[in-house]
Amino acid sequence: MAEGANLIVLPELATTGYTFFSREEAFAHAEPVPTGPTVRAWEHFARAHGVYIVGCLPELDGWKLYDTAVLVGPEGFIGKYRKTHLWNEEKLFFTPGDLGYPVFETRLGRIGLLVCWDIWFPETARLVAQQGADIICIPTGWVWTPPPLYDASGTCMAAYLTMTAAHVNNVFIATADRIGVERTSGFMGNSLIAGTNGWPIGRIAGPDEDTILYADIDVVQSRTAPIWNQLNDLHRDRRVDLYDQMLGYRGGSPLPR
Amino acid sequence: MAEGANLIVLPELATTGYTFFSREEAFAHAEPVPTGPTVRAWEHFARAHGVYIVGCLPELDGWKLYDTAVLVGPEGFIGKYRKTHLWNEEKLFFTPGDLGYPVFETRLGRIGLLVCWDIWFPETARLVAQQGADIICIPTGWVWTPPPLYDASGTCMAAYLTMTAAHVNNVFIATADRIGVERTSGFMGNSLIAGTNGWPIGRIAGPDEDTILYADIDVVQSRTAPIWNQLNDLHRDRRVDLYDQMLGYRGGSPLPR
Repeated sequence: MAEGANLIVLPELATTGYTFFSREEAFAHAEPVPTGPTVRAWEHFARAHGVYIVGCLPELDGWKLYDTAVLVGPEGFIGKYRKTHLWNEEKLFFTPGDLGYPVFETRLGRIGLLVCWDIWFPETARLVAQQGADIICIPTGWVWTPPPLYDASGTCMAAYLTMTAAHVNNVFIATADRIGVERTSGFMGNSLIAGTNGWPIGRIAGPDEDTILYADIDVVQSRTAPIWNQLNDLHRDRRVDLYDQMLGYRGGSPLPR
Repeated sequence: MAEGANLIVLPELATTGYTFFSREEAFAHAEPVPTGPTVRAWEHFARAHGVYIVGCLPELDGWKLYDTAVLVGPEGFIGKYRKTHLWNEEKLFFTPGDLGYPVFETRLGRIGLLVCWDIWFPETARLVAQQGADIICIPTGWVWTPPPLYDASGTCMAAYLTMTAAHVNNVFIATADRIGVERTSGFMGNSLIAGTNGWPIGRIAGPDEDTILYADIDVVQSRTAPIWNQLNDLHRDRRVDLYDQMLGYRGGSPLPR
């Protein structure tokens, strides 16, 4: 922020820690959104410094908990997104998100929110981008999964998922991941800010690198068809007629797997 | 084939050349499928050698031309797929495919077909995989697009699109690209066979490397949920309820871009 950032993205569940061992632990750290103290503190900071913040925290709503990303700005709380694809034991603590894939208008541009494992589902970035998002902000806690974790360049599949999602949707994507080990969870780092062409702006953070990434983005790029040629446009060229004919297949696997 | 291949994938429009300068040229090289001589020759070869072949050719159907991938095997012609997303001047010569995303049962497993630019649309591999495909075969003519074409490792975005599509769908993907320059088209190489975990089996071919890639695949992998943990499965975890609520957004961009 002292470096001039206008939009700050924090990792998943950044204020509480990621790894809960019981539902009781998760409840003890959860807060209502936006009326709990953490969102209020982010609002205060955003107002004081004239910045936008994407945070993520365990949201308390009656007996339900959600893994919730929030967007706050100088004008206060703007909106929230409840993680729709829960990873591993998150399924024991959290309820799957029920708010769809909102996109928020801000003075910086249109901001969409996803959380971590969501990016494994190409539908998510597609649905956000189709609503005209300029940038998708993704708090993440990308954990160790079956090897190989990284390729020879030290890049994990999650970073490639981010790059390709940005590329095919012509949208900026900013991810903020954790590093190191917390209780039983090991994190993969590899935070990146992908340009609308998919390639990282600057670089992909190292697997164990404690750092902050910066990038300038220009919403003209996310609102202009990529200059492939005169005849193609990624969004226009979608064959919605065919995708919709096959809606039945979206419901699961008609053939046993 | 002399190396023991059971399934052979050829590049896009391999028998005719890729770059047509006029619709007349494309017509002159087009054939009915499967009754034309090229598919008959592939059938003859497949029968003689006991192999499956995925080829691609300009298909003639009345006054329409399609950029069509075909699957033939020892039993003869099995089926075809007409490219649904046309790249650049293909739009001047070809009609967009109208056969959806078929998956064919063979003695090797279930084979899906896509062509080149289709992989830029994550819906395509998703729809094929949701039908239980074990391997998606993609004849390609990946051409030079706005730079950067490759990252520091010499890998192009198309290869990452292939890897991530394989990864999120738990499906094998075999691509066969061209290299070099043909008339006004420069090709990017980078053919690869991706495993169900997304990573290349063996390696990604170089940008200018004239080679054949081989891989052994085991359909147990494409029919088994990836061993992430006990709680997740990539196909089961899809939030079809939310994706379908947003069907209206599939039709285009509701906000001006």
